[in-house]
Amino acid sequence: MAAVLTPQGEDFPRWYQDVVAKAEMADNGPARGTMVIRPYGYAIWERMQAELDVRIKATGAENAYFPLLIPLNYFSREAEHVEGFSPELAVVTHGGGEELAEALVVRPTSETVIGEFMAKWIQSYRDLPLRLNQWANVVRWEMRPRLFLRSSEFLWQEGHTAHATREDAVGYLMTIHLDVYNDFLVNVLAAPTYLGMKTPRERFAGALNTITAEGMMRDGKALQMVTSHDLGQNFARAFEVSFQSEDGQSEYCHTTSWGASTRLVGGLIMTHGDDQGLVVPPRVAPIQVVVIPVRDDDAVAAAVGRIVDELAAAGVRARADQGRGSFGRRVTDWEIKGVPLRVEVGPRDLAEGVVTLVRRDTGEKVTRPIEGLAGAAAALLEAVQADLLVAATVRRDSATRDVGSVDEALEAAQEGFARLPWTAVGEAGEDRLNAEAVTVRCLTRPDGSVPESIEETDLLAIVARSY
Amino acid sequence: MAAVLTPQGEDFPRWYQDVVAKAEMADNGPARGTMVIRPYGYAIWERMQAELDVRIKATGAENAYFPLLIPLNYFSREAEHVEGFSPELAVVTHGGGEELAEALVVRPTSETVIGEFMAKWIQSYRDLPLRLNQWANVVRWEMRPRLFLRSSEFLWQEGHTAHATREDAVGYLMTIHLDVYNDFLVNVLAAPTYLGMKTPRERFAGALNTITAEGMMRDGKALQMVTSHDLGQNFARAFEVSFQSEDGQSEYCHTTSWGASTRLVGGLIMTHGDDQGLVVPPRVAPIQVVVIPVRDDDAVAAAVGRIVDELAAAGVRARADQGRGSFGRRVTDWEIKGVPLRVEVGPRDLAEGVVTLVRRDTGEKVTRPIEGLAGAAAALLEAVQADLLVAATVRRDSATRDVGSVDEALEAAQEGFARLPWTAVGEAGEDRLNAEAVTVRCLTRPDGSVPESIEETDLLAIVARSY
Repeated sequence: MAAVLTPQGEDFPRWYQDVVAKAEMADNGPARGTMVIRPYGYAIWERMQAELDVRIKATGAENAYFPLLIPLNYFSREAEHVEGFSPELAVVTHGGGEELAEALVVRPTSETVIGEFMAKWIQSYRDLPLRLNQWANVVRWEMRPRLFLRSSEFLWQEGHTAHATREDAVGYLMTIHLDVYNDFLVNVLAAPTYLGMKTPRERFAGALNTITAEGMMRDGKALQMVTSHDLGQNFARAFEVSFQSEDGQSEYCHTTSWGASTRLVGGLIMTHGDDQGLVVPPRVAPIQVVVIPVRDDDAVAAAVGRIVDELAAAGVRARADQGRGSFGRRVTDWEIKGVPLRVEVGPRDLAEGVVTLVRRDTGEKVTRPIEGLAGAAAALLEAVQADLLVAATVRRDSATRDVGSVDEALEAAQEGFARLPWTAVGEAGEDRLNAEAVTVRCLTRPDGSVPESIEETDLLAIVARSY
Repeated sequence: MAAVLTPQGEDFPRWYQDVVAKAEMADNGPARGTMVIRPYGYAIWERMQAELDVRIKATGAENAYFPLLIPLNYFSREAEHVEGFSPELAVVTHGGGEELAEALVVRPTSETVIGEFMAKWIQSYRDLPLRLNQWANVVRWEMRPRLFLRSSEFLWQEGHTAHATREDAVGYLMTIHLDVYNDFLVNVLAAPTYLGMKTPRERFAGALNTITAEGMMRDGKALQMVTSHDLGQNFARAFEVSFQSEDGQSEYCHTTSWGASTRLVGGLIMTHGDDQGLVVPPRVAPIQVVVIPVRDDDAVAAAVGRIVDELAAAGVRARADQGRGSFGRRVTDWEIKGVPLRVEVGPRDLAEGVVTLVRRDTGEKVTRPIEGLAGAAAALLEAVQADLLVAATVRRDSATRDVGSVDEALEAAQEGFARLPWTAVGEAGEDRLNAEAVTVRCLTRPDGSVPESIEETDLLAIVARSY
């Protein structure tokens, strides 16, 4: 079969573009940097949202919705936001048919307006913790846009919480990072990451600590999948989010913020995709099984319909492809879309009461009886899900080199990740890495857990090029 | 108990404001006309979304996402959009730190950009029907904003579909209007409406036909709950959405559009709310049952916890109120929030193994054994759901007067709806009604079904003041 996509090894960015287009994930919008998320791409995002949302709610957070348009003066309250018409902002100057007395910013994040309402809603320790989450679009002007990875408008969830004590805030933040984000990344996206804290220079402005999950893409570069920020009392002080404590004192809240965006779709593509296209893990796949007739034949078509109905009744997201075009072409199309399992139904197999199941990840083919197919398909989907995680973990581990110096790290980062003692890097080492477009992605403990403090001994730096 | 809310009969708009604030549904945002949807209000909207989304998908439509920012020139393609910086548009003139060569509009609807992509994606009859839906925020500058009912930014779904024939388009539109919207309104919101077509002057600009569902609010005014538009080939002609037919001809598609917004939350409040606050139908209630201890007591508190767990295990959305404050104050608060069922647990009842259930809609109290309470609660919730629909239907019917002339209609519209033969109104009659801020809400058949054509004989006009 002729290659439909640019091979990854030939030109990875081109491969990415090809996959996004040919799998009908997204298109460029009419205005620079904007994105049209097509139904197949959006269905994947919807599944990500559903999986994240149920986990977020299980921590006690509630969803709310804050306005898109925010007065410009909200962006000069915090030192980090002083720039005014900062390059990242899209600014509305006209509304109601006339020039506005005060310009409005299309939110690049909702933290300023959420800060204002937290201050209003929180009076006493009884109002704490206040745990809010918002699913919304945000706009950050993007000079070098790339679908899903860097777009001027993107979709995300942003969580903002206020707590009475630092312990409660940090504890909650770890729950979000581990039980929500990492559980989702590992068990839904099958995407292993390095968990750790950012170095001071890579931290979110104003945060005491930023925790990250750094995934390895198939070209060896890192993608920051999610981040969670411990804002200490800095944010509360800027927005006057204070509360009356049990003993009657007025105190500033301890706040957190955390977000995951449509960037995860890009991360999914680049974690599992191969030269045949997308590879979508079953738990996040809008279509888990596609059932294709090998030949145009009424009996086969009827069998395909029955099989899809039985799979659907068993809770498997199945779809028939009774479409036109050659069998080979349709197989290629479903491979590009990364549907985890393909069921091929032919007249000869049908006579024997069997079908062929083909795994997208390994290409492995097995013959199974039509009787009880749903159970066999569900078991195979579980195997695909588990094997994708193993395969991605093996790729990550084998492309991570333990080194001892910044020089070696720079060399290793040309192919994958480098891991070395943070003491061997330090501020000066970070300067040297950054000069070569390589960064410290995070600091982790030797056992892979998230450090509590940058002062811990034995910290390891994960170093890589990144998106 | 002192009245917490302005009574409806005294000042309905004030009552509405009070309910929205005291039930913690929404707040005004910092920029004029913007809205902060608080967790309780947003949870109701999320339930509406889920109920609508499953019905929309069942018709074969797929969700997608189009950009927020649209080049200004997109708004001069259609005759209806020629105004340029029209008063309803919010216009972005700066981005990337500089003035833009071409201004961008914050979408007031996505029809222009969806039209462009439909034209791109549709080549042949094989690509039809194309059925897209989008959940998104839109901005329409609002001079006299009102939370949920008229806000500069609101949340909605907008469906846009393209078909090969008018029959297919109109058939699909009726599926949306009846099987999606009306089923949702009747069976989820318990909101009876008048279904019908708009008169030519009330139609959506560019539509051949606009179908509506007009609800009656408790002050006798109408609220347009949803609308569905038959755009014929007008839209396709403006955006060059054409296809190659089976016999090789190039033809314009027949398109539809249809939407439902956060306005429905306002409609819900004003359909069922009373002087004690919100009344939320069980199927859309984020909290269906609140369980309250009558007295602060360890055994009672433990029983409350067990009851909530059992209700939750049975699929009832239940919450314990172990909070502080007087019992009476807490009861009032949950009444304002409109939670359909309240379970009161007291030490004496507990000794007898029973609890008291109180219906929010009727105030009726019944005693039920704790053993098997989940079944009793579920049955009562079903009864509340059904009775709310009956009560709203009785209110609507008794406040709808059959009259014979425009004069009588004007009089009847001061209290409720008027219904009269369309032949008794006509263009001139509409002028007279409109002069008194009364409108023809829709034209229906005598049996309440939606007419296919304004030329049908026996059409009835539903006439009212409106939001």
